[in-house]
Amino acid sequence: MKKHNFSAGPAILPQPVFEQAAEAVRDFNGMGLSLLEISHRSPQFTAVLDEAQVLVRDLLGLSDAYEVLFLQGGASSQFFMTAMNLLDEKGKGGYVDTGSWSAKAIKEAQAFGPVEVVASSKASNYNAIPKGYPIPDGLTYLHITTNNTIFGTQYKALPETATRLVADMSSDIFSKPVDTERFDLIYAGAQKNMGPAGVTLVIVRKDALGKVGRHIPTMLDYRTHIKKGSSFNTPPVFPIYVSMLTLRWVKANGGLKAMQARNEAKAKLMYEAIDSNPLFDGTVAAAEDRSVMNATFNLIEGREDLFAPFLELCEEAGCSGVKGHRSVGGFRASLYNAMDLESVQVLADVMHAFTEKYA
Amino acid sequence: MKKHNFSAGPAILPQPVFEQAAEAVRDFNGMGLSLLEISHRSPQFTAVLDEAQVLVRDLLGLSDAYEVLFLQGGASSQFFMTAMNLLDEKGKGGYVDTGSWSAKAIKEAQAFGPVEVVASSKASNYNAIPKGYPIPDGLTYLHITTNNTIFGTQYKALPETATRLVADMSSDIFSKPVDTERFDLIYAGAQKNMGPAGVTLVIVRKDALGKVGRHIPTMLDYRTHIKKGSSFNTPPVFPIYVSMLTLRWVKANGGLKAMQARNEAKAKLMYEAIDSNPLFDGTVAAAEDRSVMNATFNLIEGREDLFAPFLELCEEAGCSGVKGHRSVGGFRASLYNAMDLESVQVLADVMHAFTEKYA
Ligand SMILES: Cc1ncc(COP(=O)(O)O)c(C=O)c1O
Ligand SMILES: Cc1ncc(COP(=O)(O)O)c(C=O)c1O
Ligand SMILES: [Mg+2]
Ligand SMILES: [Mg+2]
Ligand SMILES: [Mg+2]
Ligand SMILES: [Mg+2]
Repeated sequence: MKKHNFSAGPAILPQPVFEQAAEAVRDFNGMGLSLLEISHRSPQFTAVLDEAQVLVRDLLGLSDAYEVLFLQGGASSQFFMTAMNLLDEKGKGGYVDTGSWSAKAIKEAQAFGPVEVVASSKASNYNAIPKGYPIPDGLTYLHITTNNTIFGTQYKALPETATRLVADMSSDIFSKPVDTERFDLIYAGAQKNMGPAGVTLVIVRKDALGKVGRHIPTMLDYRTHIKKGSSFNTPPVFPIYVSMLTLRWVKANGGLKAMQARNEAKAKLMYEAIDSNPLFDGTVAAAEDRSVMNATFNLIEGREDLFAPFLELCEEAGCSGVKGHRSVGGFRASLYNAMDLESVQVLADVMHAFTEKYA
Repeated sequence: MKKHNFSAGPAILPQPVFEQAAEAVRDFNGMGLSLLEISHRSPQFTAVLDEAQVLVRDLLGLSDAYEVLFLQGGASSQFFMTAMNLLDEKGKGGYVDTGSWSAKAIKEAQAFGPVEVVASSKASNYNAIPKGYPIPDGLTYLHITTNNTIFGTQYKALPETATRLVADMSSDIFSKPVDTERFDLIYAGAQKNMGPAGVTLVIVRKDALGKVGRHIPTMLDYRTHIKKGSSFNTPPVFPIYVSMLTLRWVKANGGLKAMQARNEAKAKLMYEAIDSNPLFDGTVAAAEDRSVMNATFNLIEGREDLFAPFLELCEEAGCSGVKGHRSVGGFRASLYNAMDLESVQVLADVMHAFTEKYA
């Protein structure tokens, strides 16, 4: 049976990427060696790293002011590394609190300098993206989480400010075009739209660095990795290779504008299935804040007893990963780049069939 | 043609591990999904993580005093993380300087507390393991690099001291039994004997932690990862899986005593080929310090012109990765667990044939 993988991350990647990655583990480019056993300084792997960097630049339209890094440690390491490299007692980091990941970023930053939470949707259990709040002058940066994987909200427009942004784009990078010039730094754990777990993308504006006085361990200083082209030490070879293959697929399939069209069509189908269905409710307050990547929904009040039967029917139809994040419950259908519209239709049909039976 | 991979790291892994890893990228355990697209919190992956931890404990005979962590960032991140978590101004870290990696560990530690280099072989270009030096009392720990990947030296006996050791075992972990009770902390980048690049093993004695006063970012505090079983955030799924497969292979092939016998036989063959050959010289001063993992050698003085022709003959015979580290030149044959004696014989034969032609 064909599987439809709605997992929030690690998540679906294009099928041809899995095929090529499996082959590279057996024999990389006809070398007679596995990709896993060759030197990260071999011409064969440095070509991969170069191509991955060029694809990131190309797809996002990055100017020369930016550097592209492939690091380790996940987006969670960027929560503190951004502040460690950009913030000190002379400055102030502004943060918008739109979910658990934003909250962790705020917590980690506080150790490195003054932090001001300029807006938060915490009081409404993060069911909206705050809008219309004043943004103070003189912030070192304004940190946002562009897509809130757990709560199913997403920025459709960037905050209006002259201050440069720092953004956690873990769950919507490469899903649509971005005005990258607005950012000092963008980071993303690869394991949604970009690749498998084990590599973290960092895009940083060179002129934002070197302004804090503190000691930074060599491995935590972005400048180390800029100078050494992400090869100061052994980079995560296989995760980078699979990311490169995935970005090649994005480009071959029309780039970010094409991804956006594809993703919006899937989201439309998914939210229509939720809204039209009498057994299910979306969790996000306003339609405009709904994530194109992660559609979160619940059973209507009083029918929570149908939780397990619904997940069972999903599994029977080959739809996996539909369970919501353990911290919020309910359901979540993640609709990353690699997912087809047909798979979303399968889930919509399951919801419909379920309602025929139980409503 | 069969390839004989003498690369220093990323390095050769057992052939069946490559086969199983490739299959898991296509379809993991018959799930109909790639290992790369499943949640790190799925029962299928947590079983992998558990088995990997149990194998590490089992193979090394770890007591309950120790925790086993699978982290990101490479051994290079451990250079500072060890000191950040264990050392402060009230203590003193002792270091033995036996090569470039030791020197980096010393440099990174200095930011976190007093550091004393108790012995160094730097003056002789790191061609020996220091012995018979006094070790001061009252050290917080004594840091050693058990195998010096670049210079081809290896500790055959641990320093005599009651102080607990901290060790970089990146290039000889799982190659022989270790008296683990002597250590407060052991770390190793996976990409030699344990797995592919992208995961770092840390073994830490619980009672060594929590003694420094400084703020430690959540992701850099070993206690975070202990509490969350290496899943505080998304772990490097595929590198951990391949490491688990490799450790299974080590166990199925007799464990660390069997690895030791196997590795010593290969090293004996390799060093005999070097010593008996009039064109080549070993680089390590005393036979007892020679690494069982990385055999370093040079052309004899005056015949450096033969450098390129020798590497060419190696490649023709399928022997790859024989070039020495870019910082020292010469040659290096790495003989990790997964390498067969037959492959070492092929290299020895190449050296012999080369000498027949040129000596
Ligand atoms: C928006 C966002 N930020 C951060 C993270 C944490 O990423 P990592 O597990 O790579 O540390 C996640 C993980 O799902 C996420 O969705
Ligand atoms: C002994 C030793 N320590 C540390 C390192 C650095 O490891 P990593 O590249 O994982 O940071 C290496 C790499 O070869 C090594 O051989
Ligand atoms: Mg969230
Ligand atoms: Mg509805
Ligand atoms: Mg060395
Ligand atoms: Mg000789």
